[in-house]
Amino acid sequence: MANITKKVSWSSRADDSAAAAAAAGEGTPLLNGSEQPRSFRQHAAGGSLFQIGRLTTVELEEEVTADEDSLRGQAREIPHTEKLLSLKYESLDYDNIENQLFLEEERRMSHMSFRCLEISRWVVCGLIGLLTGLIACFIDIAVETLAGLKYEVIRRNIENFTETGGLSISLILWVGFNAAVVMLGSILVACFEPIAGGSGIPQIKCYLNGVKIPRVVRLKTLVIKVFGVICSVVGGLAVGKEGPMIHSGAVVAAGVSQGRSTSLKRDFKMFEYFRRDTEKRDFVSAGAAAGVSAAFGAPVGGVLFSLEEGASFWNQMLTWRIFFASMISTFTLNFVLSVYHKKPGQLSNPGLINFGRFEIESLEYSFYEIPLFIAMGAIGGLLGALFNFLNYWLTIFRIRYVHRPCLQVMEAMLVAAVTATVSFTMIYFSTDCQPLAPENSEEYPLQLFCADGEYNAMATAFFNTPERSVRSLFHNQPGSYNPLTLGLFTLTYFFLACWTYGLAVSAGVFIPSLLIGAAWGRLCGILLASISSSGSLWADPGKYALIGAAAQLGGIVRMTLSLTVIMVEATGNVTYGLPIMLVLMTAKIVGDYFIEGLYDIHIKLQSVPFLHWEAPATSHWLTAREVMSSPVTCLNRIEKVGTIVDTLSNTSTNHNGFPVVMQVAGNDEPAKLCGLILRSQLIVLLKHKVFVELARSRLTQRKLQLKDFRDAYPRFPPIQSIHVSQDERECMMDLSEFMNPTPYTVPQDTSLPRVFKLFRALGLRHLVVVDDENRVIGLVTRKDLARYHLGKHGLEELQLAQT
Amino acid sequence: MANITKKVSWSSRADDSAAAAAAAGEGTPLLNGSEQPRSFRQHAAGGSLFQIGRLTTVELEEEVTADEDSLRGQAREIPHTEKLLSLKYESLDYDNIENQLFLEEERRMSHMSFRCLEISRWVVCGLIGLLTGLIACFIDIAVETLAGLKYEVIRRNIENFTETGGLSISLILWVGFNAAVVMLGSILVACFEPIAGGSGIPQIKCYLNGVKIPRVVRLKTLVIKVFGVICSVVGGLAVGKEGPMIHSGAVVAAGVSQGRSTSLKRDFKMFEYFRRDTEKRDFVSAGAAAGVSAAFGAPVGGVLFSLEEGASFWNQMLTWRIFFASMISTFTLNFVLSVYHKKPGQLSNPGLINFGRFEIESLEYSFYEIPLFIAMGAIGGLLGALFNFLNYWLTIFRIRYVHRPCLQVMEAMLVAAVTATVSFTMIYFSTDCQPLAPENSEEYPLQLFCADGEYNAMATAFFNTPERSVRSLFHNQPGSYNPLTLGLFTLTYFFLACWTYGLAVSAGVFIPSLLIGAAWGRLCGILLASISSSGSLWADPGKYALIGAAAQLGGIVRMTLSLTVIMVEATGNVTYGLPIMLVLMTAKIVGDYFIEGLYDIHIKLQSVPFLHWEAPATSHWLTAREVMSSPVTCLNRIEKVGTIVDTLSNTSTNHNGFPVVMQVAGNDEPAKLCGLILRSQLIVLLKHKVFVELARSRLTQRKLQLKDFRDAYPRFPPIQSIHVSQDERECMMDLSEFMNPTPYTVPQDTSLPRVFKLFRALGLRHLVVVDDENRVIGLVTRKDLARYHLGKHGLEELQLAQT
Repeated sequence: MANITKKVSWSSRADDSAAAAAAAGEGTPLLNGSEQPRSFRQHAAGGSLFQIGRLTTVELEEEVTADEDSLRGQAREIPHTEKLLSLKYESLDYDNIENQLFLEEERRMSHMSFRCLEISRWVVCGLIGLLTGLIACFIDIAVETLAGLKYEVIRRNIENFTETGGLSISLILWVGFNAAVVMLGSILVACFEPIAGGSGIPQIKCYLNGVKIPRVVRLKTLVIKVFGVICSVVGGLAVGKEGPMIHSGAVVAAGVSQGRSTSLKRDFKMFEYFRRDTEKRDFVSAGAAAGVSAAFGAPVGGVLFSLEEGASFWNQMLTWRIFFASMISTFTLNFVLSVYHKKPGQLSNPGLINFGRFEIESLEYSFYEIPLFIAMGAIGGLLGALFNFLNYWLTIFRIRYVHRPCLQVMEAMLVAAVTATVSFTMIYFSTDCQPLAPENSEEYPLQLFCADGEYNAMATAFFNTPERSVRSLFHNQPGSYNPLTLGLFTLTYFFLACWTYGLAVSAGVFIPSLLIGAAWGRLCGILLASISSSGSLWADPGKYALIGAAAQLGGIVRMTLSLTVIMVEATGNVTYGLPIMLVLMTAKIVGDYFIEGLYDIHIKLQSVPFLHWEAPATSHWLTAREVMSSPVTCLNRIEKVGTIVDTLSNTSTNHNGFPVVMQVAGNDEPAKLCGLILRSQLIVLLKHKVFVELARSRLTQRKLQLKDFRDAYPRFPPIQSIHVSQDERECMMDLSEFMNPTPYTVPQDTSLPRVFKLFRALGLRHLVVVDDENRVIGLVTRKDLARYHLGKHGLEELQLAQT
Repeated sequence: MANITKKVSWSSRADDSAAAAAAAGEGTPLLNGSEQPRSFRQHAAGGSLFQIGRLTTVELEEEVTADEDSLRGQAREIPHTEKLLSLKYESLDYDNIENQLFLEEERRMSHMSFRCLEISRWVVCGLIGLLTGLIACFIDIAVETLAGLKYEVIRRNIENFTETGGLSISLILWVGFNAAVVMLGSILVACFEPIAGGSGIPQIKCYLNGVKIPRVVRLKTLVIKVFGVICSVVGGLAVGKEGPMIHSGAVVAAGVSQGRSTSLKRDFKMFEYFRRDTEKRDFVSAGAAAGVSAAFGAPVGGVLFSLEEGASFWNQMLTWRIFFASMISTFTLNFVLSVYHKKPGQLSNPGLINFGRFEIESLEYSFYEIPLFIAMGAIGGLLGALFNFLNYWLTIFRIRYVHRPCLQVMEAMLVAAVTATVSFTMIYFSTDCQPLAPENSEEYPLQLFCADGEYNAMATAFFNTPERSVRSLFHNQPGSYNPLTLGLFTLTYFFLACWTYGLAVSAGVFIPSLLIGAAWGRLCGILLASISSSGSLWADPGKYALIGAAAQLGGIVRMTLSLTVIMVEATGNVTYGLPIMLVLMTAKIVGDYFIEGLYDIHIKLQSVPFLHWEAPATSHWLTAREVMSSPVTCLNRIEKVGTIVDTLSNTSTNHNGFPVVMQVAGNDEPAKLCGLILRSQLIVLLKHKVFVELARSRLTQRKLQLKDFRDAYPRFPPIQSIHVSQDERECMMDLSEFMNPTPYTVPQDTSLPRVFKLFRALGLRHLVVVDDENRVIGLVTRKDLARYHLGKHGLEELQLAQT
């Protein structure tokens, strides 16, 4: 019972700092501290003696949990600020647990079995690419068909009523249809799987960063995501269908690579070796890349996206497999769509979004245009920062007040109705009539009040799926739009898109950003042409539309390298590499000066312990001793079952990793570190009752194998579901065989950047801090590192909260 | 003197295994063991007592060194086999030495100074890109001008003599000119800087992998490389000017980032912060990327090349800077060449090699062509393997017998003469006359025996710089070549290129590979067109030339992802992404079945301790205890100067890192690890006489700063050049302030893959193995890890040798 005394919450520091903050009367108060019974504060109030006593029986604990659950239903007004770090997220474990079982298995495996494993990894990646591509096809075809139907019906209706004068009926039809479809999508998301909302890119970024976001890679999420995005786009919201593809690809990867579906309760007995965090995360990066690839026809961009977001350790074979998945994905999409469009073999649809083919002549640029591009980048950065700023406040508002599903659905319907109304009004009052040229490829030309043989230019922007509008802005002949139309469109669409992102619908922000940028970019091009004397110089506003689109997208999402490559691949031409890079870089620098990127804002508002690339530059004076959590709950190499159950049941700490120590018999010295064991492993051990006494009495008992751990992965049962009798509590458990015998350790004087580097490069979950006698003095986890960040006044520390 | 007893060579194991190998009479005998006096064997023969006694005075040691140097001149017949691992290469240290000086400096730095540092990193990258681009321009313009002159003169000469019948004079002129120019290039390389030979890609791969290749990033190497490559290409060898650009970029980066030139003895007092391995290696990756970018107009490909070869830890900001350097490089090249070609602003020369513009129609491919592409990939893999196999034997032959500069120059001249002769013969006997169309863009059309208005098709392939030949094969009209011409050309050029690679000239293998591939690829296209009934289907042999080029290049160099992107970027069109990837993958799989890639072969033949991505799959049963070198020479925290001098002077071990241990006073327990110090640091300390006694007597003495270490970087003086008097030998040195107090450690039971992962991910140079009392029991270095590799019969261990 040596370590019972050590059972003090890791959160003790957060507790202190929260108390200090409250005392000083500054900062955001930790509202949840008083509202949420789960938080550490109430336990702490009971004093540590009570706490320890309370935990000696599991029954009592279960009661408390039930209590808490009933209370939790009420406390939904979660205070969100970016100054908090949530304790509810767990880490993925990218480090292999090299326990005896694992080593034995690896030793048994021949060279040939490793080959087979490698081949099955390739097969899995191929499947990921194939399925992701097929999902993209499904979304594309569904959206095109349904949106086509919708626009056709409404267009006919408008045409009918233009002369007779009942256009308000058309408006009602349009608004009603949009609101209904969006309601459907929103109900799916808000009531069944909130995690499927939004683009999913922030969630996937977090997952690849190593944070376990609950339910993010489940089958249910995928299904709701797919149908949700179809509803959003068909419902005419200012959204794109591309962002969600990345999430979809990731879910496909997580599913396929495990060879089973826990939701469907089917186990295909395949790929069992891949049932652990390390392998799964690798496949999820491949899936995300396949998603990007299918969305933008950008396989290389997809690989770069995955690497930029996820892979802290670059491995050549892994990269190559990711690339393979991406290629298969874009190829599948291309092939199926070519068959669907009845041009089999003509592979001209590499991605969901198709920027269309830029004429080589129109793409050439001159040296003196580069400053103009940079200026446009700066504009994009400014507008992007404004967008993010507005969305930031909107999101905080939503978190505070719009958190009930019915409210969320209603908001989504409201946005849908407003979008349709605004669009209609803009089109109605627009006087920008353009001749309907024979080569003009407008899908749904609206004549409205224009003369015969002409169409309403505003309608090409509003009365269309966003993808088509982007393409029109890039490629329509010079003169297709007049400047006023573009200006008004930019203005309204900017606010609509900003309002839309963050609604409880699944939808991406890529295409709206591109659309806003393309509109003002084209406007810039037209203005430049009008102020310069020789009109031929700036003949092509489409070029400026492209640059504007890049600038706006860069200003909003700030994805840098992968974004450059995605844009270049989507245009299908490498000529524009340098300008696009310059523009994106300028947009990023300008935007970063004001506010972070959109995805980062949303990650911060979720209080996710996200690890950046490096420790803050000025953090060299912090050492592991100051950063670590301590004291640590340690377990003995041979430990009493009761102690283990109590430790696991301790909801106030909820530890996931326990250093295993060895007490030298008859020696009073503190125990030395000899391994590390995870909660999940202990749960499996308890479930299978791997007790020393039982092993002695039942010699024939089957030895626990790695397979048992894999079967339980990833949904390990909670400790409350495991029944341990009072007799069994007196048994002993030998952890030697199951613990990781060589956990990574650092001495206590190690500087934070050094700890950070080790932690990040190896994707660790727990890093043990030892003194020079190899005794455990602390544990560094993701939260301890993510807490520090560089604020305006130097290094700042985030507060931990149980949100 | 506690650790004097520990002074046993790390190489003891190598010694044993070598002895064992010799005893068993198997394997390649370690010839150098008996021939090279520097090797450990002779010292070992003297017994350890003699060894220790011998090293007590520095003077004696210097004498011995002089002896050795004179002997070294003779022992040049180095036995090379890929089963050896040389001990002569040192590691780069990617890990920061976080000693007190460093931490103090970092703490003194404000947030602003870190910003400035970041900005200067960008400036350096910009400069790297700019200079690399300019060098590429210089090479391009020089080659074009000189080659143009040469071909014009010879063409006139041939035309003159075609009718009069003295063509043998033309032949002699051609052969003579080529041989003379190649002689010049070869003398430069062979006599002045052998490391400048070849493409430099294997060397840069090693450098980025973390191996310090002597003299590889010096200014002299760059100058010789640039002039050498001009001579090689102008001399008509079957080489390209692209590969060497990567090396050039790397040298530029290493030079610019240090803000000084040790060769020119100029210090600009800039960028002093970057004078350490970590920063320098980051910049060298940027330089290599800029080189690729300038060579192929492939900025993204360049970034991927750098990452694939070098950056084990992917960092977003670093990647972004690398990309910036690449972009600037290709842009500079583009801009300068556009001015040179008198079309300023028309940026159409992104790289040295220009594949020309593929017509979009001709690039489209159908689904059923994919199996054909894969088959061509397999052919490329086979031919590549054959190429590598021949070159492997040739290289071994060269290492054994052609190692004197004069022989090397003669061989190069011979190859030049043979190349010219063969070309002439082929052209002479060719009967493939093609009409000289007006749109035909042949630079030097040779009429020879063709009718008026016709030209010799064989001459477009042979009588041209290889870059132009590739372009002609890609783009010339169908029917420009007849199959026999292409077949003969492929055959002869294959052997010429194979013979050429590895000569003592600086030259790349990219373009010859592309050329061979383009020739047989075009041949495939023509044959396919002739066997299929409808000629229009396979109308464009240029497409097959492209695929063939990719297949051949992939079969020879096997660079996978970056190569795909380079090819895609060089064609300027993303449509061909999937076929190129499939082809390269097939070529790699097929080729790898037989033999490694060309660069890997050359790296192995140099016995470089190259670390691959992962430890061999079946190495889980090996632990750190078995892998490490032991016993280790440790130093005390406060150590006698004499002991340090003796340790450093010990040439039989030549250690570079020393664990620092602390003996608890009055305690007999073994000492505990408390830090790690490098040879280079000790040298600086000795040079500045940082002794405890002196510090006491001269209180005003300036404290040693980080600057002193930076000034000495990277060419630290040898220990022999530092004079330590007998009195000073009795002084003490306090290492606490200078050692790295928190070196990474692993317990002795850690498995090899785990050690490997830590070592590779963090770019370590020394990894201390400790027992559970934190006592040093061994040291893992690069050589200990690189020794293990997966052979045909499972895990194999390479022998260490002092070559």
